[in-house]
Amino acid sequence: MKLNKDLLSDVHERIKKYIHNTPVLTSQLLNNLTRCELYFKCENFQKMGAFKIRGAINALLNLTEEELQRGVVTHSSGNFAQALSLSAKLVGTKAYIVMPLTAPEVKKQAVIGYGGEITLCEPNLKSREETSDKIINEKGCTFVHPSNNINVILGQATVAKELLEEQPNLNFIIVPVGGGGLIAGTSLAANFFGKDCKTIGGEPFEADDAFRSLKSGKIEHNQTTNTIADGLKTELGNITFPIIQKYVNSIIRVEEDEIIEAMKLIWQRMKIIVEPFSSVSLAALIKEKEKFKNKKVGIILSGGNVDLINLPF
Amino acid sequence: MKLNKDLLSDVHERIKKYIHNTPVLTSQLLNNLTRCELYFKCENFQKMGAFKIRGAINALLNLTEEELQRGVVTHSSGNFAQALSLSAKLVGTKAYIVMPLTAPEVKKQAVIGYGGEITLCEPNLKSREETSDKIINEKGCTFVHPSNNINVILGQATVAKELLEEQPNLNFIIVPVGGGGLIAGTSLAANFFGKDCKTIGGEPFEADDAFRSLKSGKIEHNQTTNTIADGLKTELGNITFPIIQKYVNSIIRVEEDEIIEAMKLIWQRMKIIVEPFSSVSLAALIKEKEKFKNKKVGIILSGGNVDLINLPF
Repeated sequence: MKLNKDLLSDVHERIKKYIHNTPVLTSQLLNNLTRCELYFKCENFQKMGAFKIRGAINALLNLTEEELQRGVVTHSSGNFAQALSLSAKLVGTKAYIVMPLTAPEVKKQAVIGYGGEITLCEPNLKSREETSDKIINEKGCTFVHPSNNINVILGQATVAKELLEEQPNLNFIIVPVGGGGLIAGTSLAANFFGKDCKTIGGEPFEADDAFRSLKSGKIEHNQTTNTIADGLKTELGNITFPIIQKYVNSIIRVEEDEIIEAMKLIWQRMKIIVEPFSSVSLAALIKEKEKFKNKKVGIILSGGNVDLINLPF
Repeated sequence: MKLNKDLLSDVHERIKKYIHNTPVLTSQLLNNLTRCELYFKCENFQKMGAFKIRGAINALLNLTEEELQRGVVTHSSGNFAQALSLSAKLVGTKAYIVMPLTAPEVKKQAVIGYGGEITLCEPNLKSREETSDKIINEKGCTFVHPSNNINVILGQATVAKELLEEQPNLNFIIVPVGGGGLIAGTSLAANFFGKDCKTIGGEPFEADDAFRSLKSGKIEHNQTTNTIADGLKTELGNITFPIIQKYVNSIIRVEEDEIIEAMKLIWQRMKIIVEPFSSVSLAALIKEKEKFKNKKVGIILSGGNVDLINLPF
């Protein structure tokens, strides 16, 4: 598969009818505060509340009829679980979701609401993989990784493609880094569709595998994952990492209180709901705001699925 | 002053450059839930976070040069205080805001942030009026009532005018009722610009002066104001009431838990921040949803200024 402009355009055409072209919002107040020209791509308004639907639906649309008949499986306790469940419903297949026993009730309900079938496992990697493997063996279904899958990455690339269609002259796009699917896709789109548009990652100090991987030149592991940014506890993989190495400019790490502060700014000033991992991009910009001064910066607000009972403020 | 289509169009032209034409959002999920076609007019995205800027700026643009030089005064602890402060800044005059000692710090800060000058008073009507009168006498400035002022009402009417420009075939517009400025303006716009579009009010049982006033045919007073819908504790006046009597179809009362439930639906499903009084319109629709079944309904989301520290969930 050759990664180029045409390939991304084809992917976008293919998934268009299943996704929203989400709005790009601006805020004079946040522009004044940061001294940049900010363009917020609101994937919190995406179907199921996050960008993940883009990659999930693209992965399913690349399966054969026979594969679709047998269904798909993933392990995720977060947005990808909902995304794959909804995507499966949209294309008429079955999604099996492996979730840890400890996953919040509200997330299980959301998966069931979209028609996904949950199999619970112990909250560790070994149990997660064994449980997935068992389902794959029993049902003959296809495993879809939440980020380390080229079709997932290409689906996520359409966020930045849409943003650049609306704002072609962005100097930077800042995006949160977890498993790396979104930032890998973003960097491809920025490279193919931007005019010298750099991709910057935002990552919590508490889960900074991507920052350290770029430094060392090999995939590093998280030493802690004690972050409020739920979506970012995952790690880079062998498909996301080389793309990130090649196309991402740099990664900015942020503290937990900086994430919460950015989240408050977005809620209070823009009047929209974003989840903590969404706020990491704005937190990263604020952290190194001299770098972005007077520039046009795209900020990807990746999701809005928040448990209102457990807010950090 | 003759209330007609041309007058409203003139007002809209006059204030256009000071306000946002706020977006109209839809939600398939809420349409399915209510079995209506809902169009949410998002005044939570308005400047200073609420529709109040429309009326405030229109009132100021109707003052003479000499009046503007002396400044304006109002008493409000809520959104109108911020609206008048910002409007005064925009047209280059001074706003004196009378606020009760007990007003939350966050609201005082917001007024100061917009350049308003606060004078504190005791938290009762007598002190509020005496304090305002004192400022009027000392400074010679003009009193601008938050709702019971025809230019304020005409400014608020532009919310529904914009909504009907985007969705001309609405059967209903539902709007919260406090002092009655917004609903009076809405009912004028619905009458002049709608095609048989009815205006419906939403009001908490805990502050149901408007419901009872329409029943009895005279201005009634609130018996309690123990509602979470801060913006709706005020009462109708001699200018708002006759317009409401003439043009409003009916008022639906809602319980406190219904307001909170509607607010949660908007936050969780639409991913936008609205304050409690904003949610009363959706709560009213849900309360009597049979009435609105299969209809096109405009829902005015009036404001988004929420204290994140004191959420009801």
